[in-house]
Amino acid sequence: MAGNSFGTLFRYTTWGESHGPAIGCVVDGVPPRLPLAAPDIQHWLDRRRPGQSKFTTQRREPDHVRILSGVFDGLTTGAPISLLIENVDARSKDYGAIKDQFRPGHADYTYQAKYGIRDYRGGGRASARETAMRVAAGAVARKVLGDGITILGALIQIGADRIDRSAWDWNEVEKNPFWCPDAGAATRWERLLTEIRKNGSSLGAVIEVVASGVPVGLGEPVYDKLDADLAKAMMSINAVKGVEIGAGFGAAELSGEKNADEMRLGNDGRPVFLSNNAGGILGGISTGQDIVVRFAVKPTSSILTPRRSIDRFGNEVEISTKGRHDPCVGIRAVPVGEAMLAIVLADHLLRHRATRGPSSGSE
Amino acid sequence: MAGNSFGTLFRYTTWGESHGPAIGCVVDGVPPRLPLAAPDIQHWLDRRRPGQSKFTTQRREPDHVRILSGVFDGLTTGAPISLLIENVDARSKDYGAIKDQFRPGHADYTYQAKYGIRDYRGGGRASARETAMRVAAGAVARKVLGDGITILGALIQIGADRIDRSAWDWNEVEKNPFWCPDAGAATRWERLLTEIRKNGSSLGAVIEVVASGVPVGLGEPVYDKLDADLAKAMMSINAVKGVEIGAGFGAAELSGEKNADEMRLGNDGRPVFLSNNAGGILGGISTGQDIVVRFAVKPTSSILTPRRSIDRFGNEVEISTKGRHDPCVGIRAVPVGEAMLAIVLADHLLRHRATRGPSSGSE
Amino acid sequence: MAGNSFGTLFRYTTWGESHGPAIGCVVDGVPPRLPLAAPDIQHWLDRRRPGQSKFTTQRREPDHVRILSGVFDGLTTGAPISLLIENVDARSKDYGAIKDQFRPGHADYTYQAKYGIRDYRGGGRASARETAMRVAAGAVARKVLGDGITILGALIQIGADRIDRSAWDWNEVEKNPFWCPDAGAATRWERLLTEIRKNGSSLGAVIEVVASGVPVGLGEPVYDKLDADLAKAMMSINAVKGVEIGAGFGAAELSGEKNADEMRLGNDGRPVFLSNNAGGILGGISTGQDIVVRFAVKPTSSILTPRRSIDRFGNEVEISTKGRHDPCVGIRAVPVGEAMLAIVLADHLLRHRATRGPSSGSE
Amino acid sequence: MAGNSFGTLFRYTTWGESHGPAIGCVVDGVPPRLPLAAPDIQHWLDRRRPGQSKFTTQRREPDHVRILSGVFDGLTTGAPISLLIENVDARSKDYGAIKDQFRPGHADYTYQAKYGIRDYRGGGRASARETAMRVAAGAVARKVLGDGITILGALIQIGADRIDRSAWDWNEVEKNPFWCPDAGAATRWERLLTEIRKNGSSLGAVIEVVASGVPVGLGEPVYDKLDADLAKAMMSINAVKGVEIGAGFGAAELSGEKNADEMRLGNDGRPVFLSNNAGGILGGISTGQDIVVRFAVKPTSSILTPRRSIDRFGNEVEISTKGRHDPCVGIRAVPVGEAMLAIVLADHLLRHRATRGPSSGSE
Repeated sequence: MAGNSFGTLFRYTTWGESHGPAIGCVVDGVPPRLPLAAPDIQHWLDRRRPGQSKFTTQRREPDHVRILSGVFDGLTTGAPISLLIENVDARSKDYGAIKDQFRPGHADYTYQAKYGIRDYRGGGRASARETAMRVAAGAVARKVLGDGITILGALIQIGADRIDRSAWDWNEVEKNPFWCPDAGAATRWERLLTEIRKNGSSLGAVIEVVASGVPVGLGEPVYDKLDADLAKAMMSINAVKGVEIGAGFGAAELSGEKNADEMRLGNDGRPVFLSNNAGGILGGISTGQDIVVRFAVKPTSSILTPRRSIDRFGNEVEISTKGRHDPCVGIRAVPVGEAMLAIVLADHLLRHRATRGPSSGSE
Repeated sequence: MAGNSFGTLFRYTTWGESHGPAIGCVVDGVPPRLPLAAPDIQHWLDRRRPGQSKFTTQRREPDHVRILSGVFDGLTTGAPISLLIENVDARSKDYGAIKDQFRPGHADYTYQAKYGIRDYRGGGRASARETAMRVAAGAVARKVLGDGITILGALIQIGADRIDRSAWDWNEVEKNPFWCPDAGAATRWERLLTEIRKNGSSLGAVIEVVASGVPVGLGEPVYDKLDADLAKAMMSINAVKGVEIGAGFGAAELSGEKNADEMRLGNDGRPVFLSNNAGGILGGISTGQDIVVRFAVKPTSSILTPRRSIDRFGNEVEISTKGRHDPCVGIRAVPVGEAMLAIVLADHLLRHRATRGPSSGSE
Repeated sequence: MAGNSFGTLFRYTTWGESHGPAIGCVVDGVPPRLPLAAPDIQHWLDRRRPGQSKFTTQRREPDHVRILSGVFDGLTTGAPISLLIENVDARSKDYGAIKDQFRPGHADYTYQAKYGIRDYRGGGRASARETAMRVAAGAVARKVLGDGITILGALIQIGADRIDRSAWDWNEVEKNPFWCPDAGAATRWERLLTEIRKNGSSLGAVIEVVASGVPVGLGEPVYDKLDADLAKAMMSINAVKGVEIGAGFGAAELSGEKNADEMRLGNDGRPVFLSNNAGGILGGISTGQDIVVRFAVKPTSSILTPRRSIDRFGNEVEISTKGRHDPCVGIRAVPVGEAMLAIVLADHLLRHRATRGPSSGSE
Repeated sequence: MAGNSFGTLFRYTTWGESHGPAIGCVVDGVPPRLPLAAPDIQHWLDRRRPGQSKFTTQRREPDHVRILSGVFDGLTTGAPISLLIENVDARSKDYGAIKDQFRPGHADYTYQAKYGIRDYRGGGRASARETAMRVAAGAVARKVLGDGITILGALIQIGADRIDRSAWDWNEVEKNPFWCPDAGAATRWERLLTEIRKNGSSLGAVIEVVASGVPVGLGEPVYDKLDADLAKAMMSINAVKGVEIGAGFGAAELSGEKNADEMRLGNDGRPVFLSNNAGGILGGISTGQDIVVRFAVKPTSSILTPRRSIDRFGNEVEISTKGRHDPCVGIRAVPVGEAMLAIVLADHLLRHRATRGPSSGSE
């Protein structure tokens, strides 16, 4: 099956290249009679939009989204929803060198090898520009989830500098250009990234996204476990190299006693977990606790320092990237991670509705 | 779509519970005229089989596999291949307490909440016994990949004790009960796990699986990237909490200069990478380098020390697990990780064949 | 995607060859807590079983079905249900000639050309024996549909001899070996088929299957219309060459005035249709009327009269089939058509549950 | 899975309503480096375009298609191809009555019942306007098939008036407004439809589509048989009520002797069939003969004569349709049927490439 779609019942397909006339997506499987208008989507796109601080690419894209189908009188109709964003600031005149050279860390070489052709302008289909449509689809997914489920994301590490988790404050996330929940770390990162940007270098990052209010019972064992689909969703984002759930790689270091999330009954008689090493998922099914997902983004591959590479004619070359690029592409990955979390949950919410039994207590 | 299948063109479906009459799988999409006989599959099952050392569960299952369809005169026919293993040593008489209680860290609670019913005998469908069929399907996948692609796995960390990567020797892997490539670590782990087992405790682990000889060009951007499918494959294995490719979470700490895998031309005129932080995948497509995947397994949740929990009638209880269980379930995850890597590669090999162009250079 | 599965949410996969050790299927996506036991399935298999009259193949198969997974304490668990039937009366000793020759009208030539190998014993995977597993999966589908939906099938034409529709009596269907609803036609067919059988010839047939009690709203436009999925389901049955819904090909001859099914309000204030040319489906969605599907089965290709053909070595040959075969394979297609109708409806019932809106009136 | 996509490897998704701002589709899975430009698609759209004769709807749509992605330097890149057509002549001012009434034979009632909301303007998503995107996707499919495979369609029956098959001349098809291969029938139909149009009535039709040059081996038994997928493809077209392959329903009337397509060796030593009752498909796999598919289209439901119906408030009403509509919607279904045939074949060509064995002789 062609690879530009994601999801099973809530399923969307993206299309478009970085420097083509437009990018877009078709979201299929949206239940009918949900209120939806362009501003509902624009809100989330604006958070991801490039050029909002000196720490993200200076490409100026208004990213103005249009709804072309599937909505009538302000409500979804159950028909596919087509979303489209025109590319405005696509400076594709000067791609002389990049045209034939393979930038290290980029997909230039593999696209050329796989397809025998590539749209080299701005990375073409491999550009992070595609993630705008993930955010757009994520906005629709949030409508499916409803107000009871909250999804938030934060940057928790740039380079080797991690936040102090005891200083976590979700309110801080909106106050700095990094989506950083730790005010102290945000101050340090400001200095760090200013320097990195001046040097024409780049750094990687770690993002954490959290969903609260998720009902018990989402996830389809064995292969479509909620965590398995989340791992795929996050790893499919450009530049992501690792994904973990709950205690993640740290769980390897725990003893069985420490790792087990014990259960008690809450005052309302409902189950309460005393810890959340599981990240809200057991056996591939949501527990009702917060879903906690982290993912690592590698440093932007476009840097000023020349790197050795080859071109498609078989010559050895040296490449340094000028142009407009992010010193830490991880920053803009925060809203993208949130969107993917929303999308996976919306899909599994619909899947759970379909196959639960005649009088299931869950949901 | 129901969740018990994996893959797109090379697609298999598993069925069966830990203490039911049998477990099995159907592998569909296998190209015709590949030599295949039961011993080809049994070879890999024997590596995963429980009860082979004191460090894995003492359940005694011969795991004798039968091929029920899809093979004729020793060759695959293109028809679905049905594989079946009878459950022999399923001691299900005494499940009194477990029947109604939710063991912490297990899927008891979530299965009950999702389905309103669960086969509590030995974990039912959520049992690691299901992974036997992953190994069986992986054996078929290896036939699809052919001899040119080699897949190996190793345990590189138990608890907080990591191997010395400079001491890596693939030959060591077969010489100790841990699939450990570092002889020194294997000696330490022997002591460590003996103690853990005596205490009725457990530890987590990290596994690394590597594929060599993979051609350039496998992977279907944007959502079915090779690394995205690998992340899903590994995260779907029981008890896995994290997955990373190449430098993985470590990539977050690297500068763009250090992370970029530079390229030169080899003596044979073919591209050579000078490092492999990418783990053999760029833009979701294989580069021709080794594919390197790591995943973290949490400590076995079945431990002797009592843990607090609840039962399905809303009572608070304390649970300790006696029975036969692994002190480190990560050990047996090594052949399972290998199998999942083989399965993802086989699927993408077929997908690449289907859609590459009329005269593509790759493969 | 490999071709041995059918359905989206209610999805089953069949495996097995006519003369292999067994045939089976895995039914995935079955909601939990539905009562299910082997006799529920055996009941329907017994209706399809060969050797029950002189008008169907004399192969003697008890077709004893076993449930190997997915059912616990008499209820489905939401896990995949594995069903298995052992092949008992597979006389495969003598396939000398057929082994290398392509029987006209059979899949021998195309399987050989496509796969370069074929299990020639009894038709292998292309045998109508596969339809036993359709009936088994259909029995599970009926459980999903519940008692409110009734599915019945009838043979309405053998060769050029059609029933008199005004004489239709569903009670007659169980009283003759043809599932014929017209007692007069059944008497004629008895003579007709006796002669055909003596001559070693064969005849085609037309089957009609009807579902009553189907709620309004099943079907997913535009491509997964209920009628589109029914067309695929029926055409996938061995030997089927045509499918029609409601007025079917006859609709081409109607004027718009005659074809339109007018609507009025019934005594209970609910919509009533005054005719059913639509066959219970408008715009790909069920109307609440009876779903009416017809399909044509070609005459059995295995006949006594020699036919000209070739063998796989490039020689011209003449072939006549001895062995045990049906003079009218359409007879045994009746329960198979019923099963496929049940399967499509069960799948769409689950799909409709998943994506209907927050307060939909339907269902 | 949401229902607006078709195909497995060659997979497209359509979106858009009759009177929305635009309609479009995304075609995914197209192999790279195929020459493709807008005129290649426009050519086929122009054949389907409404308003070209007095026998089709007078809606004036230029149906000007734009390629928004997936093509670079005149070649496909392997990325998804987004196609868009703006709706120009959408007169949606006056839908007063239709807004709340259910037109008999239309999808008004079922859409309202299923979704609880519907875009009533021009039929919304249920409009035949959607078929423009089938023709567009079909144009891309033809590129995948290459010049060796020819696909042609013809109208062979209007109302009860059938062509004389012995007068079949493919050259005639382009010479009359009906795609009629029999010049005599075309003359009769001119008179017939003129009268029908004056009366404000409508008639059904039968279409035949034929593919020549198809290689042996396409089709994936058991459930994705080539004929099963063709049946689904055709039945998913608006107003289609029946589909048949080769001899179709007529096969039911044949004896086994007459139905069997005998084989001989041609002068070139390759297999030759002496007849084609199978319609080019045996066991769900193409034989190398012409693929022959027929489908029946019901008469247009929009007619002048008042019909009884109800509205969504539960009142009984009478409805007659004025507006612009086709007296025989079957005419415009000819290019749509061709497109669907091309799409199914392209999908199966890619699927066959993926899974055939290491040295298969076919294709």
